This record gives sequence, C-alpha cells and structure tokens, in this order.
Amino acid sequence: MRSLFAALSALLVACAAAAQPLQIREIGSLHAGGRVAGVSGLPEQEIVFSPGAPPLRINPNGEFQVEQMYAQYVRLQDPRARYPLILAHGGGLTGVTYETTPDGRPGWQMHFLRAGHDVFVTDAMERGRSGWARFPQILAGEPVFRTMGEGWDLFRIGPAGGWNVDPAQRRAFPESRFPAAAWNQFMMQSVPRWVTTDRQVQAAYDALVQRICPCVVLVHSQGGNFGFTMALNAPDKVMAVIAVEPSGAPPQASEAARVRGIPHLVVWGDNIRGNAFWERIRANVERWQGQIREAGGTADTLDMAAEGVRGNSHMIMMDDNSDDVAARIQAWMERRGLMR
Amino acid sequence: MRSLFAALSALLVACAAAAQPLQIREIGSLHAGGRVAGVSGLPEQEIVFSPGAPPLRINPNGEFQVEQMYAQYVRLQDPRARYPLILAHGGGLTGVTYETTPDGRPGWQMHFLRAGHDVFVTDAMERGRSGWARFPQILAGEPVFRTMGEGWDLFRIGPAGGWNVDPAQRRAFPESRFPAAAWNQFMMQSVPRWVTTDRQVQAAYDALVQRICPCVVLVHSQGGNFGFTMALNAPDKVMAVIAVEPSGAPPQASEAARVRGIPHLVVWGDNIRGNAFWERIRANVERWQGQIREAGGTADTLDMAAEGVRGNSHMIMMDDNSDDVAARIQAWMERRGLMR
Repeated sequence: MRSLFAALSALLVACAAAAQPLQIREIGSLHAGGRVAGVSGLPEQEIVFSPGAPPLRINPNGEFQVEQMYAQYVRLQDPRARYPLILAHGGGLTGVTYETTPDGRPGWQMHFLRAGHDVFVTDAMERGRSGWARFPQILAGEPVFRTMGEGWDLFRIGPAGGWNVDPAQRRAFPESRFPAAAWNQFMMQSVPRWVTTDRQVQAAYDALVQRICPCVVLVHSQGGNFGFTMALNAPDKVMAVIAVEPSGAPPQASEAARVRGIPHLVVWGDNIRGNAFWERIRANVERWQGQIREAGGTADTLDMAAEGVRGNSHMIMMDDNSDDVAARIQAWMERRGLMR
Repeated sequence: MRSLFAALSALLVACAAAAQPLQIREIGSLHAGGRVAGVSGLPEQEIVFSPGAPPLRINPNGEFQVEQMYAQYVRLQDPRARYPLILAHGGGLTGVTYETTPDGRPGWQMHFLRAGHDVFVTDAMERGRSGWARFPQILAGEPVFRTMGEGWDLFRIGPAGGWNVDPAQRRAFPESRFPAAAWNQFMMQSVPRWVTTDRQVQAAYDALVQRICPCVVLVHSQGGNFGFTMALNAPDKVMAVIAVEPSGAPPQASEAARVRGIPHLVVWGDNIRGNAFWERIRANVERWQGQIREAGGTADTLDMAAEGVRGNSHMIMMDDNSDDVAARIQAWMERRGLMR
C-alpha cells in the first residue's frame, strides 16, 4: 500500500513536470582525450565511396586520431544541481542506455534534466560516437559481439536458458520489471566492444573529467570501475559517484582514503541473491565500499530488493519503475548536498 | 558591403535568439530498421569483462540484432516547422557532424532548433550509435579507416599535399573558412565505415522515414544519394530534400517523375571548379537535378561561390560562416512553404 502510494505520487509529480517545457540553454557535444597514432606497411586500395562517384586510390597508412571519447551535453537555462551530471554506460552499449527506454518511455537523461541537472551522456572510448580504431594495429585483440540471448541471462531478465529467438517462447522472471517485449529493440542498442582496452577507456574518462568537471558521475555495469577510478584519479573534480549495478571496483584498499571526501552510492536491482556470478561481483563492490567507509568516507547502498521492490534487472534504468529508481537516486543527491 | 551587412544582421538575430532558452518538449532516441541474423561455427571464448569480475565462458554463436540505425530527437514545445527535420551525415562520420563545431561553436542541430524545427540527428547503419556487426559474416568486406591527411584534400580544406602531421606545417586554402586549427578535434569525429553496405544503409533510412515521417531530409556527402533515394522510396513521406555537397545521385532518369512534387535544394561550397574529382561529382548531381526539373519538379541550387562567398569547404556546416549558410537554407525552406 505504501509503495503504491509512493508510485502514484511519483507519477503525479512526473506528469506535472512533463507538462512544462524544459528550458534549455544549449545542446552540444565534444570529444575528449585520445592521441594521434601512426599505421604503416598496409597496401594501397582503390575504393568507390558512393555510387556514381569516381574511384579513389586510397593509401590506408598514415596518422589517425584515436582513443578519444564522446560526450553529448544538454545545459539547462537554470540548473538546480550544483554540478553537471555525467552518465556513463556499461559494456557493449553506448550512452543510448540513458535515452528513451526500449519500450518508448523517457529515460534517465530526461529524468535528471527535469530534476535540474545539466546532463552529459557519454560513449566510452571505442563505442558509439567515440569511434574505434584499426585492430590489431591500434586496439589490441578482437572485438566481442553480444548475442541476443547472452544478455537475457546475464542482465537478469529471466532464468538461464529462458531466452528464445521466438519472442513468444522467452521466459522472463515472473516479477521482472524489464520491458521484455521490447528486448529486440533493446538489442539494437548493442555495439561491439573490446576487452583489452580498459586502460584507454579509463584515460579518456579521466581526460573528460579534466575537461568538464567539477561534476557528479553516474556509471553503470562495466562503467562502475571506471567511475570509481575517475574519482580516485581526480578527487578534486569528482563530487560524487553513483554506481548502478557496477561490475567491478578498484583493487587497492590503500587508495580508498583518497576518495573519503566523495560521497558514493551503489544501486542494485533484484535477483542477485542465489546468482553466483552476481554475488561475487557484489561482494567485490561491497569490499570497496567497506574500504571507503574504513577510510572515513561515505559509501551508501540503494538495494531495491531490500527496499521491498521486486524484479529490478541489471538494466534498471529501463525497467518499468525506472522513474522511481531515479527519484530515489535524486533524493540521495538532495541529502548529500549536491543540489542548490 | 552587402554581404557584410547580411552577415552582421544574421549575427544580431542569432545573438538575440541565443539569449532565449529553447522550449523543449522531449529529448530522446530510437533505433529503426534492422533484422535478426544468425552466426554459427565460431569457437567458444573465455572472457573477463571487467577487472575483478569472474571469467565468463562465451559462445559467440547465436542471433544478433543487426543493420538498424540510430536517430536522436529533440522536440520543441511549439515547432514552427510543418515537419520534423532529419539530419543525415556523410561517409566516415556520424550525426556529430551537426552538433557543436570542432572549434566549439553551436552546430546546425542548434541552428535549426532555434529556427523552429523538431530535429532528428541520425547515425547511418554501422556508424556511431547504430552499432556494427561481425564481418565478414554479416557485413561484407572490411571497414575503411580515414587517415587524418586524406580528408584535408578530399574535403577541400587545402591543396593536395597541404596536410602535415605537424599543425604548424599544414597549408589550408588562403580563403578557407574551415576552422583548420581544430582539424585534430574534427578527426576525433571520424568513425570506420564500410563501402559494401549501401543497400543496408538505404534500407535503414527508408525504415526510419516510415517510422517518423512526414519530414524534411537534410543530407551531406555520402548521405546525398541516400537522401535522394529516401524521397524516391517514400514520395508521400519526404516533404523536401536538402542535399549538402552530395557525393552521389540516383542513376535512373525515368524515376525522377516520382519526386516531382518534392522540392529539392542542393548546396555547394567553394573550390569545386578546377577540382576534377568534385567537378565529376557535381556534374552527376546536376544531371539528377535536371531530370527532376524535366519531370516538372523543383531542384534548386545554393552555390555559395556563385553567391560571392569564398572559401566554403565540403564540411560547410563547420565553416566559420556555418550560421549564414544555415540561414540561407532556412530562407529556402520558408520560400518553399515548409514553415508555418
């Protein structure tokens, strides 16, 4: 009953806000970080780039701008947040994670704009609009492509073996809040990823922080460790870290003292207990949270299942209660003094 | 003198508009088109996706969502344009083409929002946030990577051989309007591209048109032929085509009658005369414009050099007079009845 009332209240607030136009100062983008890299020794090619265009002889050797990352920003006329909010996605995805949900509802980008934040939606190095470089010459190894079925289990939409290419045959958890009927639409958001590029991905995030912060960083999944490390690498610039279902955390306990002045919040969905893979990930993150607290810092947790809300998946920003989860994160930011 | 006055007037209008916040109804995105494709016969892999996470055994075979395209939209509270405006980029680039210019000025996305259009900024199939698929299994052939030097000549920033890895040694055309000091920043916007995927790129654009139009389509470079063909494939949905430095055009004269009800505008920069590559491209586009006119249609031209404005490059939406060029395109849309 209490959660029904809370949900209805949140809906009313959202409807009232949605009726008002957003007052926007500027929409734009930038690329940060990266370097110039040379490639040599490859043979010339003759290429017709467009039908009707004459062929061009192309020398594929030369210099390339590589390892930068993309950030798109929406600046409000009068932000209520003290700092811009950087949204960073997880593995095999892009900033689209935070845009319209696969079933067509406003995403967290819009939610946090309406809540008064300047919002930067980012693509990690080698994903989306960041571009990717020739491999193996510049990016080591090969990219990994996620099958449609892999995420169903890994993202805790349904039980192992619950996915089927036929949508009518897919089995989600009965309480699942992910819009499972829009799974194919969600998979359109997938992009290839490397698993050898953590150093460059981190370097680009760190360059972005130097360019646009002070700011608050909200990261998801693979972005978790990058977000925790952004704070370690720029404790004067990162004002808070919100790690949503983070899949990793920094290994060195001795470093935690550097971020004791930076409030951390970790957000978890449901169906982690009993899932050995996710239990190990969560234990590792809780170890890091404990180390921050031991160093005198703040490392809070928002555990939706512990709050009595069932069925949240790994892709919690797309679940049917995504606005409710965002509102709880917003309330934490209010409590932690991040709003004017 | 007259063009100085026009430029100053445009600047004053732009400054007055820039002082007012944009009234935005919604910011969001979608993926359109695509299909489910299967891959089989590849060996299993064991992968550690994030530091500290346990390794996962991954079967790379299965189904993939492929060949979709991404569109990001900004909807105004009260658009003055009759139809949304789709912005589509050229080869080796993404929708970032229309965002902030490499030297940090507002791009055409902002310009056309301020002029009263709902704006869709799109990434072509296999570029940017559209994602790309395993090759050669799904995408035929190999991707092409553009060197930093190739574009300098091809995009008419400077003479052949004018590029140098050392920014101080680069030679631009004396009258060049491209912000050449920001060339490295521009090259960060590059993404790999295939030259074998025109069919799938077109199919995704056509799916996007079916999903979100009626609309006006503004395309650039490689996007030119896709835009002309979007109109051919959906003459009831595409209300106008604006082709900026298009690199191709449909081959069949007999088809021009299908688009005779759709106003077309072709926009050219400077330094095309005497450049054999660009003269051939332009002649092919003028052939298509002539065929539209012979069929009783409208195919106008905005030739900046003929208007007495020197130095516009192929990347005209990034040149130092980008707002002036956009204002001339806007004036054409007003004349063609596309605004309320």
